[in-house]
Amino acid sequence: MTFSLTVLGSNSAIPTLHRNPSAHLLNANERLFLIDCAEGTQLQLRRFRIHFQRIKHIFISHLHGDHFYGLMGFLTSLHLLGRHEEIHLYANPELQQIIDLQLAASRTQLVFPLIFHPLFSSDKELIMEDEKIQVFSFPLLHSVPTCGFLFRERKAARNLRSPRSYAYCSDTAYSEAILPFINGTSLLYHEATFLHEMAATAREKFHSTALEAASIAAKAGVKKLLIGHFSARYDDLSPLLDEARSVFPETILAVEGDKVDIA
Amino acid sequence: MTFSLTVLGSNSAIPTLHRNPSAHLLNANERLFLIDCAEGTQLQLRRFRIHFQRIKHIFISHLHGDHFYGLMGFLTSLHLLGRHEEIHLYANPELQQIIDLQLAASRTQLVFPLIFHPLFSSDKELIMEDEKIQVFSFPLLHSVPTCGFLFRERKAARNLRSPRSYAYCSDTAYSEAILPFINGTSLLYHEATFLHEMAATAREKFHSTALEAASIAAKAGVKKLLIGHFSARYDDLSPLLDEARSVFPETILAVEGDKVDIA
Repeated sequence: MTFSLTVLGSNSAIPTLHRNPSAHLLNANERLFLIDCAEGTQLQLRRFRIHFQRIKHIFISHLHGDHFYGLMGFLTSLHLLGRHEEIHLYANPELQQIIDLQLAASRTQLVFPLIFHPLFSSDKELIMEDEKIQVFSFPLLHSVPTCGFLFRERKAARNLRSPRSYAYCSDTAYSEAILPFINGTSLLYHEATFLHEMAATAREKFHSTALEAASIAAKAGVKKLLIGHFSARYDDLSPLLDEARSVFPETILAVEGDKVDIA
Repeated sequence: MTFSLTVLGSNSAIPTLHRNPSAHLLNANERLFLIDCAEGTQLQLRRFRIHFQRIKHIFISHLHGDHFYGLMGFLTSLHLLGRHEEIHLYANPELQQIIDLQLAASRTQLVFPLIFHPLFSSDKELIMEDEKIQVFSFPLLHSVPTCGFLFRERKAARNLRSPRSYAYCSDTAYSEAILPFINGTSLLYHEATFLHEMAATAREKFHSTALEAASIAAKAGVKKLLIGHFSARYDDLSPLLDEARSVFPETILAVEGDKVDIA
Protein backbone atom coordinates (compact mmCIF):
# COMPACT_ATOMS: atom_id res chain seq x y z
CA MET A 1 0.00 0.00 0.00
CA THR A 2 1.03 3.63 -0.42
CA PHE A 3 2.84 5.01 2.61
CA SER A 4 4.39 8.38 1.90
CA LEU A 5 4.86 11.75 3.51
CA THR A 6 4.67 15.17 1.86
CA VAL A 7 6.26 18.09 3.67
CA LEU A 8 4.01 21.17 3.56
CA GLY A 9 6.01 23.37 5.93
CA SER A 10 9.58 23.11 7.17
CA ASN A 11 10.13 26.32 9.10
CA SER A 12 9.80 27.14 12.76
CA ALA A 13 7.73 29.96 14.17
CA ILE A 14 7.99 32.77 11.61
CA PRO A 15 6.92 32.06 8.03
CA THR A 16 9.22 33.33 5.27
CA LEU A 17 8.70 33.60 1.54
CA HIS A 18 10.70 30.40 1.13
CA ARG A 19 9.55 28.23 4.02
CA ASN A 20 6.16 27.79 5.69
CA PRO A 21 5.73 26.72 9.31
CA SER A 22 4.79 23.16 10.26
CA ALA A 23 2.42 20.93 8.34
CA HIS A 24 2.85 17.40 7.00
CA LEU A 25 0.60 15.24 4.89
CA LEU A 26 0.73 11.47 5.30
CA ASN A 27 -0.76 9.24 2.63
CA ALA A 28 -1.40 5.83 4.17
CA ASN A 29 -3.12 3.56 1.70
CA GLU A 30 -4.71 6.58 -0.01
CA ARG A 31 -6.10 7.86 3.27
CA LEU A 32 -4.78 11.39 3.78
CA PHE A 33 -3.77 12.52 7.26
CA LEU A 34 -2.94 16.17 7.91
CA ILE A 35 -0.44 16.62 10.73
CA ASP A 36 -0.29 20.17 12.08
CA CYS A 37 -1.73 23.03 10.10
CA ALA A 38 0.21 26.28 10.24
CA GLU A 39 -0.96 29.49 8.58
CA GLY A 40 -0.83 29.02 4.83
CA THR A 41 -1.27 25.23 4.88
CA GLN A 42 -4.34 25.32 2.63
CA LEU A 43 -2.29 27.16 0.00
CA GLN A 44 0.51 24.63 0.34
CA LEU A 45 -2.03 21.86 -0.32
CA ARG A 46 -3.15 23.69 -3.45
CA ARG A 47 0.43 24.35 -4.52
CA PHE A 48 1.30 20.65 -4.33
CA ARG A 49 -2.00 19.63 -5.95
CA ILE A 50 -3.30 17.67 -2.99
CA HIS A 51 -7.06 17.36 -3.18
CA PHE A 52 -7.87 18.56 0.30
CA GLN A 53 -11.40 17.25 0.51
CA ARG A 54 -9.74 13.81 0.71
CA ILE A 55 -8.34 14.66 4.14
CA LYS A 56 -10.46 13.14 6.88
CA HIS A 57 -8.19 13.20 9.93
CA ILE A 58 -6.27 16.18 11.29
CA PHE A 59 -3.73 15.89 14.10
CA ILE A 60 -2.50 19.00 15.93
CA SER A 61 0.59 18.44 18.06
CA HIS A 62 0.20 21.51 20.28
CA LEU A 63 -1.25 24.99 20.46
CA HIS A 64 1.65 27.15 19.40
CA GLY A 65 0.47 29.20 16.45
CA ASP A 66 3.03 27.89 13.99
CA HIS A 67 1.29 24.51 14.28
CA PHE A 68 -2.39 25.45 14.04
CA TYR A 69 -3.05 29.02 12.83
CA GLY A 70 -4.00 27.66 9.41
CA LEU A 71 -6.66 25.35 10.82
CA MET A 72 -9.62 27.77 10.94
CA GLY A 73 -8.98 28.88 7.37
CA PHE A 74 -8.68 25.30 6.20
CA LEU A 75 -11.91 24.24 7.95
CA THR A 76 -13.69 27.32 6.58
CA SER A 77 -12.58 26.51 3.04
CA LEU A 78 -13.83 22.92 3.41
CA HIS A 79 -17.12 24.40 4.61
CA LEU A 80 -17.42 26.92 1.78
CA LEU A 81 -16.59 24.24 -0.77
CA GLY A 82 -19.57 22.25 0.50
CA ARG A 83 -17.91 19.34 2.25
CA HIS A 84 -20.29 16.78 3.72
CA GLU A 85 -18.00 14.07 5.05
CA GLU A 86 -16.91 14.31 8.66
CA ILE A 87 -13.53 15.63 9.80
CA HIS A 88 -11.87 14.05 12.81
CA LEU A 89 -9.69 16.47 14.71
CA TYR A 90 -7.22 15.26 17.34
CA ALA A 91 -5.82 18.03 19.54
CA ASN A 92 -5.46 19.58 22.94
CA PRO A 93 -8.98 20.20 24.34
CA GLU A 94 -8.41 23.98 24.48
CA LEU A 95 -8.55 24.00 20.68
CA GLN A 96 -12.22 23.11 20.71
CA GLN A 97 -13.04 26.33 22.55
CA ILE A 98 -10.85 28.37 20.17
CA ILE A 99 -12.69 26.91 17.19
CA ASP A 100 -16.16 27.29 18.71
CA LEU A 101 -15.56 30.92 19.59
CA GLN A 102 -14.47 31.78 16.05
CA LEU A 103 -17.35 29.89 14.46
CA ALA A 104 -19.73 31.75 16.77
CA ALA A 105 -18.16 35.13 15.96
CA SER A 106 -18.68 34.51 12.24
CA ARG A 107 -22.16 33.01 12.79
CA THR A 108 -20.95 29.88 11.01
CA GLN A 109 -22.42 26.44 11.43
CA LEU A 110 -20.12 24.04 9.61
CA VAL A 111 -21.89 22.04 6.92
CA PHE A 112 -19.87 18.94 7.84
CA PRO A 113 -19.52 17.16 11.20
CA LEU A 114 -16.34 18.15 13.02
CA ILE A 115 -15.57 15.42 15.50
CA PHE A 116 -13.18 16.53 18.18
CA HIS A 117 -10.91 14.00 19.90
CA PRO A 118 -9.16 15.59 22.90
CA LEU A 119 -5.52 14.64 23.47
CA PHE A 120 -4.00 14.75 26.91
CA SER A 121 -0.34 14.12 26.09
CA SER A 122 0.37 12.30 29.33
CA ASP A 123 1.22 8.84 28.01
CA LYS A 124 1.22 6.74 24.86
CA GLU A 125 -2.35 6.31 23.70
CA LEU A 126 -4.07 4.69 20.75
CA ILE A 127 -6.11 7.53 19.28
CA MET A 128 -7.31 6.17 15.95
CA GLU A 129 -7.34 2.93 14.05
CA ASP A 130 -8.88 1.32 11.02
CA GLU A 131 -8.20 -1.94 9.23
CA LYS A 132 -4.92 -0.66 7.78
CA ILE A 133 -3.35 1.67 10.30
CA GLN A 134 -3.08 2.60 13.96
CA VAL A 135 -2.26 6.07 15.25
CA PHE A 136 -0.78 6.70 18.68
CA SER A 137 -0.06 9.93 20.52
CA PHE A 138 2.74 10.23 23.04
CA PRO A 139 4.14 13.10 25.15
CA LEU A 140 6.97 15.34 23.97
CA LEU A 141 9.06 17.67 26.11
CA HIS A 142 8.01 21.20 25.23
CA SER A 143 6.97 24.45 26.90
CA VAL A 144 3.25 23.66 26.45
CA PRO A 145 1.48 20.27 26.41
CA THR A 146 2.64 18.66 23.17
CA CYS A 147 1.97 15.32 21.50
CA GLY A 148 4.07 13.33 19.13
CA PHE A 149 2.24 11.00 16.77
CA LEU A 150 3.07 7.51 15.60
CA PHE A 151 1.37 6.11 12.49
CA ARG A 152 1.90 2.38 12.13
CA GLU A 153 0.65 -0.18 9.66
CA ARG A 154 -1.37 -2.88 11.35
CA LYS A 155 0.04 -6.32 12.00
CA ALA A 156 -2.44 -7.78 9.55
CA ALA A 157 -0.33 -6.30 6.78
CA ARG A 158 2.75 -8.05 8.15
CA ASN A 159 2.53 -11.13 5.96
CA LEU A 160 4.68 -9.67 3.25
CA ARG A 161 6.98 -7.45 5.28
CA SER A 162 7.41 -5.78 8.63
CA PRO A 163 4.90 -3.00 9.28
CA ARG A 164 6.03 0.46 8.28
CA SER A 165 5.70 3.43 10.60
CA TYR A 166 6.04 7.18 10.71
CA ALA A 167 6.72 9.14 13.89
CA TYR A 168 6.24 12.90 14.11
CA CYS A 169 8.10 14.71 16.89
CA SER A 170 7.69 18.46 16.81
CA ASP A 171 8.30 20.47 18.95
CA THR A 172 10.51 18.93 21.59
CA ALA A 173 13.65 19.42 23.59
CA TYR A 174 16.12 16.54 23.53
CA SER A 175 14.40 13.80 25.50
CA GLU A 176 15.36 10.15 25.74
CA ALA A 177 11.98 9.57 27.34
CA ILE A 178 10.51 9.42 23.83
CA LEU A 179 12.76 6.53 22.72
CA PRO A 180 10.30 3.74 23.66
CA PHE A 181 7.57 5.41 21.58
CA ILE A 182 9.61 5.71 18.39
CA ASN A 183 11.82 2.66 18.63
CA GLY A 184 12.59 1.15 15.21
CA THR A 185 10.40 3.58 13.29
CA SER A 186 10.70 3.45 9.49
CA LEU A 187 10.75 7.24 9.24
CA LEU A 188 11.23 9.58 12.16
CA TYR A 189 10.51 13.28 11.80
CA HIS A 190 12.29 15.08 14.61
CA GLU A 191 12.53 18.82 14.88
CA ALA A 192 15.98 20.36 14.49
CA THR A 193 15.40 24.05 15.04
CA PHE A 194 19.05 24.96 15.65
CA LEU A 195 22.64 23.97 15.00
CA HIS A 196 24.31 22.46 18.05
CA GLU A 197 26.34 25.62 18.62
CA MET A 198 23.00 26.97 19.88
CA ALA A 199 22.29 24.03 22.20
CA ALA A 200 21.76 26.30 25.20
CA THR A 201 19.15 28.34 23.33
CA ALA A 202 17.51 25.16 22.12
CA ARG A 203 17.25 23.82 25.66
CA GLU A 204 15.93 27.09 27.00
CA LYS A 205 13.20 27.18 24.33
CA PHE A 206 12.42 23.45 24.57
CA HIS A 207 13.69 22.82 21.04
CA SER A 208 16.37 20.52 19.66
CA THR A 209 19.53 20.84 17.64
CA ALA A 210 20.27 18.84 14.50
CA LEU A 211 22.85 16.85 16.45
CA GLU A 212 20.31 16.03 19.15
CA ALA A 213 17.70 14.94 16.60
CA ALA A 214 20.27 12.63 15.03
CA SER A 215 21.28 11.27 18.39
CA ILE A 216 17.65 10.40 19.17
CA ALA A 217 17.35 8.71 15.76
CA ALA A 218 20.46 6.65 16.39
CA LYS A 219 19.40 5.61 19.89
CA ALA A 220 15.90 4.70 18.70
CA GLY A 221 17.28 2.62 15.85
CA VAL A 222 15.05 4.23 13.24
CA LYS A 223 15.61 3.58 9.55
CA LYS A 224 15.52 7.15 8.32
CA LEU A 225 15.45 10.59 9.93
CA LEU A 226 13.70 13.65 8.51
CA ILE A 227 14.65 16.95 10.16
CA GLY A 228 12.67 20.19 10.00
CA HIS A 229 11.21 23.11 11.97
CA PHE A 230 14.25 25.14 10.98
CA SER A 231 14.87 28.52 12.54
CA ALA A 232 14.32 31.36 10.05
CA ARG A 233 17.93 32.38 10.76
CA TYR A 234 19.17 29.59 8.46
CA ASP A 235 18.93 30.38 4.76
CA ASP A 236 21.29 27.55 3.88
CA LEU A 237 20.19 24.33 5.55
CA SER A 238 23.19 22.20 4.58
CA PRO A 239 25.05 22.80 7.88
CA LEU A 240 22.03 21.36 9.73
CA LEU A 241 22.03 18.33 7.43
CA ASP A 242 25.79 17.83 7.73
CA GLU A 243 25.61 18.06 11.50
CA ALA A 244 22.84 15.45 11.73
CA ARG A 245 24.54 13.12 9.23
CA SER A 246 27.73 13.18 11.30
CA VAL A 247 25.77 11.18 13.89
CA PHE A 248 23.06 9.55 11.79
CA PRO A 249 23.93 9.23 8.08
CA GLU A 250 20.39 8.32 6.98
CA THR A 251 19.13 11.86 7.52
CA ILE A 252 17.24 14.01 5.03
CA LEU A 253 16.02 17.61 5.15
CA ALA A 254 12.34 18.55 5.17
CA VAL A 255 11.85 20.40 1.88
CA GLU A 256 8.43 21.75 1.02
CA GLY A 257 6.68 19.73 -1.63
CA ASP A 258 9.08 16.81 -1.32
CA LYS A 259 7.41 13.43 -1.04
CA VAL A 260 9.21 10.83 1.05
CA ASP A 261 8.31 7.20 0.42
CA ILE A 262 8.32 5.35 3.74
CA ALA A 263 9.95 1.92 3.36
CA MET B 1 2.30 64.07 2.43
CA THR B 2 2.27 60.46 1.24
CA PHE B 3 -1.23 59.06 0.94
CA SER B 4 -1.25 55.73 -0.84
CA LEU B 5 -2.87 52.35 -0.63
CA THR B 6 -1.28 48.96 -1.28
CA VAL B 7 -3.57 46.02 -1.96
CA LEU B 8 -2.43 42.91 -0.07
CA GLY B 9 -5.42 40.69 -0.86
CA SER B 10 -8.13 40.97 -3.49
CA ASN B 11 -10.06 37.73 -3.20
CA SER B 12 -13.17 36.83 -1.28
CA ALA B 13 -13.46 33.93 1.11
CA ILE B 14 -11.26 31.18 -0.31
CA PRO B 15 -7.58 31.94 -0.93
CA THR B 16 -6.14 30.77 -4.24
CA LEU B 17 -2.57 30.58 -5.47
CA HIS B 18 -3.15 33.84 -7.37
CA ARG B 19 -5.24 35.93 -4.99
CA ASN B 20 -5.22 36.26 -1.20
CA PRO B 21 -8.27 37.27 0.83
CA SER B 22 -8.74 40.79 2.18
CA ALA B 23 -5.99 43.01 3.49
CA HIS B 24 -5.02 46.59 2.60
CA LEU B 25 -2.13 48.75 3.71
CA LEU B 26 -2.61 52.52 3.86
CA ASN B 27 0.41 54.77 4.07
CA ALA B 28 -0.70 58.15 5.41
CA ASN B 29 2.25 60.44 5.91
CA GLU B 30 4.52 57.41 6.50
CA ARG B 31 2.22 56.05 9.17
CA LEU B 32 1.22 52.53 8.13
CA PHE B 33 -2.34 51.34 8.75
CA LEU B 34 -3.25 47.70 8.22
CA ILE B 35 -6.88 47.23 7.22
CA ASP B 36 -8.13 43.65 7.60
CA CYS B 37 -5.68 40.82 7.94
CA ALA B 38 -6.65 37.60 6.19
CA GLU B 39 -4.61 34.41 6.41
CA GLY B 40 -1.30 34.97 4.62
CA THR B 41 -1.19 38.74 5.13
CA GLN B 42 2.19 38.65 6.87
CA LEU B 43 3.65 36.90 3.84
CA GLN B 44 2.07 39.48 1.52
CA LEU B 45 3.76 42.22 3.57
CA ARG B 46 7.07 40.43 3.12
CA ARG B 47 6.43 39.86 -0.57
CA PHE B 48 5.83 43.55 -1.17
CA ARG B 49 8.75 44.55 1.06
CA ILE B 50 6.67 46.44 3.61
CA HIS B 51 8.52 46.68 6.89
CA PHE B 52 5.80 45.41 9.15
CA GLN B 53 7.18 46.66 12.44
CA ARG B 54 6.20 50.12 11.13
CA ILE B 55 2.50 49.21 11.39
CA LYS B 56 0.99 50.63 14.57
CA HIS B 57 -2.76 50.54 13.88
CA ILE B 58 -4.79 47.56 12.70
CA PHE B 59 -8.45 47.82 11.69
CA ILE B 60 -10.59 44.70 11.35
CA SER B 61 -13.88 45.25 9.54
CA HIS B 62 -15.66 42.14 10.81
CA LEU B 63 -15.13 38.63 12.10
CA HIS B 64 -15.45 36.54 8.98
CA GLY B 65 -12.28 34.54 8.68
CA ASP B 66 -11.23 35.95 5.32
CA HIS B 67 -10.76 39.29 7.08
CA PHE B 68 -8.88 38.30 10.22
CA TYR B 69 -7.45 34.75 10.19
CA GLY B 70 -3.99 36.17 9.55
CA LEU B 71 -4.08 38.40 12.61
CA MET B 72 -2.83 35.96 15.25
CA GLY B 73 0.08 34.92 13.04
CA PHE B 74 0.95 38.53 12.35
CA LEU B 75 0.83 39.51 16.04
CA THR B 76 2.87 36.42 16.94
CA SER B 77 5.53 37.34 14.39
CA LEU B 78 5.73 40.89 15.77
CA HIS B 79 6.13 39.33 19.21
CA LEU B 80 8.83 36.88 18.14
CA LEU B 81 10.71 39.62 16.33
CA GLY B 82 10.89 41.53 19.62
CA ARG B 83 8.55 44.44 18.99
CA HIS B 84 8.28 46.93 21.83
CA GLU B 85 6.00 49.63 20.44
CA GLU B 86 2.29 49.31 21.09
CA ILE B 87 -0.22 48.04 18.55
CA HIS B 88 -3.69 49.57 18.45
CA LEU B 89 -6.32 47.13 17.29
CA TYR B 90 -9.81 48.32 16.28
CA ALA B 91 -12.35 45.53 15.94
CA ASN B 92 -15.53 43.90 17.11
CA PRO B 93 -15.20 43.20 20.86
CA GLU B 94 -15.53 39.44 20.31
CA LEU B 95 -12.07 39.50 18.75
CA GLN B 96 -10.46 40.31 22.06
CA GLN B 97 -11.70 37.06 23.54
CA ILE B 98 -10.53 35.11 20.48
CA ILE B 99 -7.06 36.60 20.83
CA ASP B 100 -6.86 36.14 24.59
CA LEU B 101 -7.87 32.50 24.36
CA GLN B 102 -5.18 31.75 21.79
CA LEU B 103 -2.49 33.61 23.70
CA ALA B 104 -3.47 31.68 26.82
CA ALA B 105 -3.40 28.35 24.97
CA SER B 106 0.15 29.04 23.78
CA ARG B 107 1.21 30.47 27.18
CA THR B 108 2.21 33.66 25.38
CA GLN B 109 2.45 37.06 26.96
CA LEU B 110 3.02 39.52 24.14
CA VAL B 111 6.21 41.55 24.55
CA PHE B 112 4.44 44.66 23.24
CA PRO B 113 1.25 46.37 24.48
CA LEU B 114 -1.80 45.38 22.43
CA ILE B 115 -4.40 48.07 22.92
CA PHE B 116 -7.85 46.94 21.95
CA HIS B 117 -10.46 49.46 20.76
CA PRO B 118 -13.89 47.83 20.51
CA LEU B 119 -16.04 48.82 17.52
CA PHE B 120 -19.80 48.67 17.71
CA SER B 121 -20.70 49.39 14.08
CA SER B 122 -23.94 51.13 14.95
CA ASP B 123 -23.19 54.65 13.67
CA LYS B 124 -20.38 56.82 12.33
CA GLU B 125 -17.75 57.19 15.00
CA LEU B 126 -14.36 58.86 15.26
CA ILE B 127 -12.09 56.01 16.35
CA MET B 128 -8.59 57.43 15.97
CA GLU B 129 -6.90 60.73 15.22
CA ASP B 130 -3.53 62.35 15.30
CA GLU B 131 -2.25 65.65 13.94
CA LYS B 132 -2.44 64.46 10.33
CA ILE B 133 -5.37 62.11 10.01
CA GLN B 134 -8.75 61.11 11.39
CA VAL B 135 -10.23 57.64 11.14
CA PHE B 136 -13.97 56.95 11.35
CA SER B 137 -15.88 53.70 11.44
CA PHE B 138 -19.39 53.38 10.07
CA PRO B 139 -21.88 50.50 9.69
CA LEU B 140 -22.07 48.33 6.57
CA LEU B 141 -24.89 45.99 5.61
CA HIS B 142 -23.58 42.45 6.06
CA SER B 143 -24.57 39.15 7.66
CA VAL B 144 -22.52 39.88 10.79
CA PRO B 145 -21.74 43.25 12.44
CA THR B 146 -19.38 44.96 9.99
CA CYS B 147 -17.62 48.32 9.93
CA GLY B 148 -16.47 50.41 7.04
CA PHE B 149 -13.55 52.75 7.68
CA LEU B 150 -12.91 56.28 6.49
CA PHE B 151 -9.39 57.70 6.66
CA ARG B 152 -9.34 61.45 6.12
CA GLU B 153 -6.60 64.04 6.20
CA ARG B 154 -7.22 66.67 8.84
CA LYS B 155 -8.47 70.12 7.93
CA ALA B 156 -5.15 71.57 9.09
CA ALA B 157 -3.63 70.15 5.95
CA ARG B 158 -6.23 71.93 3.85
CA ASN B 159 -4.22 75.05 3.12
CA LEU B 160 -2.71 73.66 -0.01
CA ARG B 161 -5.57 71.50 -1.25
CA SER B 162 -8.75 69.80 -0.19
CA PRO B 163 -8.20 66.95 2.29
CA ARG B 164 -7.79 63.53 0.75
CA SER B 165 -9.67 60.51 2.01
CA TYR B 166 -9.88 56.76 1.67
CA ALA B 167 -13.02 54.75 2.44
CA TYR B 168 -12.94 50.98 2.86
CA CYS B 169 -16.24 49.13 2.41
CA SER B 170 -15.93 45.39 2.67
CA ASP B 171 -18.11 43.34 2.99
CA THR B 172 -21.50 44.85 2.25
CA ALA B 173 -24.68 44.36 0.33
CA TYR B 174 -25.76 47.29 -1.85
CA SER B 175 -26.78 49.96 0.64
CA GLU B 176 -27.47 53.62 -0.02
CA ALA B 177 -27.39 54.12 3.74
CA ILE B 178 -23.59 54.30 3.49
CA LEU B 179 -23.64 57.26 1.06
CA PRO B 180 -23.39 59.98 3.73
CA PHE B 181 -20.30 58.32 5.20
CA ILE B 182 -18.36 58.12 1.95
CA ASN B 183 -19.59 61.21 0.16
CA GLY B 184 -16.90 62.81 -2.03
CA THR B 185 -14.18 60.38 -0.99
CA SER B 186 -10.92 60.59 -2.97
CA LEU B 187 -10.66 56.81 -3.20
CA LEU B 188 -13.47 54.42 -2.38
CA TYR B 189 -12.79 50.72 -1.99
CA HIS B 190 -16.08 48.88 -2.37
CA GLU B 191 -16.38 45.14 -2.55
CA ALA B 192 -17.58 43.67 -5.86
CA THR B 193 -17.76 39.96 -5.18
CA PHE B 194 -19.92 39.09 -8.19
CA LEU B 195 -20.97 40.16 -11.67
CA HIS B 196 -24.46 41.62 -11.74
CA GLU B 197 -25.85 38.49 -13.38
CA MET B 198 -25.46 37.05 -9.86
CA ALA B 199 -27.26 39.93 -8.12
CA ALA B 200 -29.67 37.58 -6.37
CA THR B 201 -26.80 35.54 -4.92
CA ALA B 202 -25.03 38.73 -3.91
CA ARG B 203 -28.09 39.98 -2.06
CA GLU B 204 -28.64 36.64 -0.36
CA LYS B 205 -25.03 36.58 0.88
CA PHE B 206 -24.95 40.28 1.77
CA HIS B 207 -22.38 41.03 -0.93
CA SER B 208 -22.37 43.40 -3.89
CA THR B 209 -21.97 43.17 -7.63
CA ALA B 210 -19.52 45.25 -9.64
CA LEU B 211 -22.45 47.23 -11.01
CA GLU B 212 -23.72 47.97 -7.53
CA ALA B 213 -20.28 49.07 -6.31
CA ALA B 214 -20.05 51.45 -9.26
CA SER B 215 -23.54 52.76 -8.61
CA ILE B 216 -22.61 53.56 -5.01
CA ALA B 217 -19.43 55.31 -6.22
CA ALA B 218 -21.42 57.41 -8.67
CA LYS B 219 -24.09 58.35 -6.14
CA ALA B 220 -21.47 59.25 -3.50
CA GLY B 221 -19.56 61.40 -5.98
CA VAL B 222 -16.22 59.82 -5.18
CA LYS B 223 -13.16 60.52 -7.32
CA LYS B 224 -11.99 56.99 -7.88
CA LEU B 225 -13.37 53.51 -7.18
CA LEU B 226 -11.28 50.46 -6.34
CA ILE B 227 -13.14 47.16 -6.52
CA GLY B 228 -12.07 43.89 -4.90
CA HIS B 229 -13.15 40.88 -2.79
CA PHE B 230 -13.60 38.93 -5.99
CA SER B 231 -15.23 35.53 -5.94
CA ALA B 232 -12.73 32.74 -6.62
CA ARG B 233 -14.97 31.75 -9.56
CA TYR B 234 -13.50 34.61 -11.63
CA ASP B 235 -10.08 33.91 -13.10
CA ASP B 236 -10.37 36.79 -15.52
CA LEU B 237 -11.43 39.97 -13.72
CA SER B 238 -11.92 42.16 -16.77
CA PRO B 239 -15.69 41.53 -16.98
CA LEU B 240 -16.01 42.88 -13.43
CA LEU B 241 -13.99 45.95 -14.37
CA ASP B 242 -15.96 46.50 -17.58
CA GLU B 243 -19.25 46.19 -15.74
CA ALA B 244 -18.23 48.75 -13.10
CA ARG B 245 -16.80 51.17 -15.67
CA SER B 246 -20.06 51.10 -17.59
CA VAL B 247 -21.53 53.02 -14.64
CA PHE B 248 -18.46 54.66 -13.12
CA PRO B 249 -15.52 55.07 -15.53
CA GLU B 250 -12.95 55.94 -12.85
CA THR B 251 -12.85 52.37 -11.58
CA ILE B 252 -9.74 50.23 -11.06
CA LEU B 253 -9.27 46.62 -10.01
CA ALA B 254 -7.63 45.63 -6.74
CA VAL B 255 -4.45 43.84 -7.81
CA GLU B 256 -2.13 42.46 -5.18
CA GLY B 257 1.02 44.50 -4.76
CA ASP B 258 -0.40 47.46 -6.69
CA LYS B 259 0.07 50.79 -4.98
CA VAL B 260 -2.63 53.37 -5.59
CA ASP B 261 -1.70 57.01 -4.97
CA ILE B 262 -4.69 58.78 -3.46
CA ALA B 263 -5.13 62.22 -5.00
